Amino acid sequence: MKHFRSIHDVADLPALLASAAAYKADPFRHETLGKGKRLGLMFLNPSTRTRLSTQVAARNLGMEVLVLNAGTEGWALEFNDEVIMNGNTVEHVREAAAVLGAYVDMLGVRTFPALLSREEDYSERVLQQFVEHSGVPILSLESATLHPLQSLADLLTMEEQFKAPRKPKVVLTWAPHIKALPHCVANSFAQWVNAWDAADFVIAHPEGYELDPAFVQQASVEHDQDKALCDADFIYVKNWSSTAQYGKHVCEDPSWMLTPEKLLPTRQAKVMHCLPVRRNLELSAAILDGPQSIVIEQAANRVWAAQAVLAEILKGLA
Amino acid sequence: MKHFRSIHDVADLPALLASAAAYKADPFRHETLGKGKRLGLMFLNPSTRTRLSTQVAARNLGMEVLVLNAGTEGWALEFNDEVIMNGNTVEHVREAAAVLGAYVDMLGVRTFPALLSREEDYSERVLQQFVEHSGVPILSLESATLHPLQSLADLLTMEEQFKAPRKPKVVLTWAPHIKALPHCVANSFAQWVNAWDAADFVIAHPEGYELDPAFVQQASVEHDQDKALCDADFIYVKNWSSTAQYGKHVCEDPSWMLTPEKLLPTRQAKVMHCLPVRRNLELSAAILDGPQSIVIEQAANRVWAAQAVLAEILKGLA
Amino acid sequence: MKHFRSIHDVADLPALLASAAAYKADPFRHETLGKGKRLGLMFLNPSTRTRLSTQVAARNLGMEVLVLNAGTEGWALEFNDEVIMNGNTVEHVREAAAVLGAYVDMLGVRTFPALLSREEDYSERVLQQFVEHSGVPILSLESATLHPLQSLADLLTMEEQFKAPRKPKVVLTWAPHIKALPHCVANSFAQWVNAWDAADFVIAHPEGYELDPAFVQQASVEHDQDKALCDADFIYVKNWSSTAQYGKHVCEDPSWMLTPEKLLPTRQAKVMHCLPVRRNLELSAAILDGPQSIVIEQAANRVWAAQAVLAEILKGLA
Repeated sequence: MKHFRSIHDVADLPALLASAAAYKADPFRHETLGKGKRLGLMFLNPSTRTRLSTQVAARNLGMEVLVLNAGTEGWALEFNDEVIMNGNTVEHVREAAAVLGAYVDMLGVRTFPALLSREEDYSERVLQQFVEHSGVPILSLESATLHPLQSLADLLTMEEQFKAPRKPKVVLTWAPHIKALPHCVANSFAQWVNAWDAADFVIAHPEGYELDPAFVQQASVEHDQDKALCDADFIYVKNWSSTAQYGKHVCEDPSWMLTPEKLLPTRQAKVMHCLPVRRNLELSAAILDGPQSIVIEQAANRVWAAQAVLAEILKGLA
Repeated sequence: MKHFRSIHDVADLPALLASAAAYKADPFRHETLGKGKRLGLMFLNPSTRTRLSTQVAARNLGMEVLVLNAGTEGWALEFNDEVIMNGNTVEHVREAAAVLGAYVDMLGVRTFPALLSREEDYSERVLQQFVEHSGVPILSLESATLHPLQSLADLLTMEEQFKAPRKPKVVLTWAPHIKALPHCVANSFAQWVNAWDAADFVIAHPEGYELDPAFVQQASVEHDQDKALCDADFIYVKNWSSTAQYGKHVCEDPSWMLTPEKLLPTRQAKVMHCLPVRRNLELSAAILDGPQSIVIEQAANRVWAAQAVLAEILKGLA
Repeated sequence: MKHFRSIHDVADLPALLASAAAYKADPFRHETLGKGKRLGLMFLNPSTRTRLSTQVAARNLGMEVLVLNAGTEGWALEFNDEVIMNGNTVEHVREAAAVLGAYVDMLGVRTFPALLSREEDYSERVLQQFVEHSGVPILSLESATLHPLQSLADLLTMEEQFKAPRKPKVVLTWAPHIKALPHCVANSFAQWVNAWDAADFVIAHPEGYELDPAFVQQASVEHDQDKALCDADFIYVKNWSSTAQYGKHVCEDPSWMLTPEKLLPTRQAKVMHCLPVRRNLELSAAILDGPQSIVIEQAANRVWAAQAVLAEILKGLA
């Protein structure tokens, strides 16, 4: 693996999932694989789970980790070419990426969408400029439109939890929120579940929240949440901002919040969320505190997902 | 030792002090005790000495350290149950603590009191929620009402400095400040000196600054500073906010500032302060720059106090 | 080497340059030299390259690194003696430096000039107070008037790039900017190139931007940029604020921006800049993206410069 930006960078998904599971069983099985190698983690936006789980994963492999919080510790970056830099940005990504690439062997980058222009966000320009100018493998720590480390952890979690000799029914359901959130987790979950090809996959959301067909693919789309949830084995709860009015937080229907009653017609569905979750807004506290929630298991699995990906990139470093 | 929140978590204080002294004599004597173990340090409030000394201590034991600055690097946490999270907080401590607990083997937490409600602060709700929800040992890096790592370092410092075959006289004296400060250091020092049971202990403060009887215990309380300081061997200088008007900064009497003249009737008392100290407001610069100040020795001893506590918790991890 | 603040702390510049080159050829040649030693990095001002390259260098030598971002993670420091600390500063450098010195074996300090008083900035009071009060070797990570780690990397870069059997012509040229910047990089480059004594050295700037004669020394000074650039082998581009009106950003002449046409009468001059650089304001993007720019090589060499300096200080620690 050269870079890790989406499912398209994964040559063998079952092998990657198996590797993650093996690291979970024995975290230090390759504790010198990364000896003498450095991972840079560049945060253009905040991060808790990704920051910590990726550090743990890298150290389990014997890598050094360098963290840079751009903005607070560093510099405001410019991403436009042809610009006269007489404004607020103090360094162009062309220099910033090349210099970071000179200091580390691989570089993780966290960047959020501006949610102002669909075209701009979906071009993944920021992440791609790090790919183009850093000269080292780039690891997405969540980008403008995708969050592949989360999705790999999500698949690992479902594989662990579901042992029946049939395909599980997996429902990604939109949830209310008070802010305009990125589409990353929903896009990425859809992309990975489709690639996994081991589930009956339904995406439920109100009208106006249609995900990109490139991610939806063969999934069923439902606007009736109750119908979607029927017989579900896994329910992935997540808000994303409007796609009809791109990136806007429009008046939202609180009836889409997942509550214990909605779990009754499911097959004792396990409930997932990437966290952080707003209790009693996206999802009832009663579910989060009950036996059907697996959100902590999901977050814990972030370590093993990251470790499998780092190991794969390390092998590609010669 | 399971958690470290107060003297009540210490089974054998003399042994803990001896362990700290032994680490000071030979910092790397147990340099592999913590191999493969991770300490998370979660700062809900700023920290300099505690942050650095705890990192040094952990590394001396071979532990990995993960630092999370909540708020700047992370997320604003919610501590109330039964809340609809449609405000500024983005993650509930129930999820945050559980996830952090999944990434580390023990977790240090720094949190300050809000100083708005005595009941709220003295419930130590924030620290206790990490105990309840993280699933790992919790190390107080200063909480709403106590600062046990500081107190252990304070006792170590007095043991080093006092060799006479009698009990030293130890005076904790209130000092002026311009802000409303927590009660933590004063409460905790009182609690630990009482448990140490090796000093004549006097607490001096103006009326309205009475500490909780649970911490004062058998100590003498004086409102006349000169009388309290007479024949002192150690003077611990510290401001704390009003207790009569809980958490308020009320008009303060500058005559309580410790000056060189006030040291004359002492037994060449050593002067202590937990730092940071406001010169010429809490304490004369002339004292801080003179031979009776041991504030730097105190701060340096923070490393050995932390190392003794981390080692004790590590032994409990099996 | 005890401290590293300027060229005056360097006993043998050719040996230091040779050491840096040797670390570049073999980064881990002394990977246990710093075992059990701790480097503290104290940032009173932001840093990207210096922060990361110094961490890499220290880890290459087996040192532990502790980072403290004062202000965001720590405390606002007071540098004036005789002050009553009843304002915004919460800790005096006398305590802060002494405590940090108790936790680490050497201490890097980053501090910028206030640009309000030449006398104040050129006294290097902040850096000197850490020298006086910390009790450990102090490493400048850029100070009020100098940036020696940058200059060492600059000389290393020129030595690598120039192999002809003659002295290169080196031109330090002022460039426009939109802010009032420190004099550090220009002062320091001049000081080190003069000590290197291996170049024909010209400093070009508009009137009113005269550098201190202590740094200019035997260099030629030109106010005609075209004349200065003629036959240049290296062009170092850098803005600095007015010296006639100390620390002010005065109306600046955009014709001083380095453009491709200005490179024509040079000897295919290599173009240098310490970064971050504002494209098309200080320097044309066409130069930065072309074959004559060596700004990335310069930045990459920061690691080896830092590693040579750290190794030299480590040897002095006994």
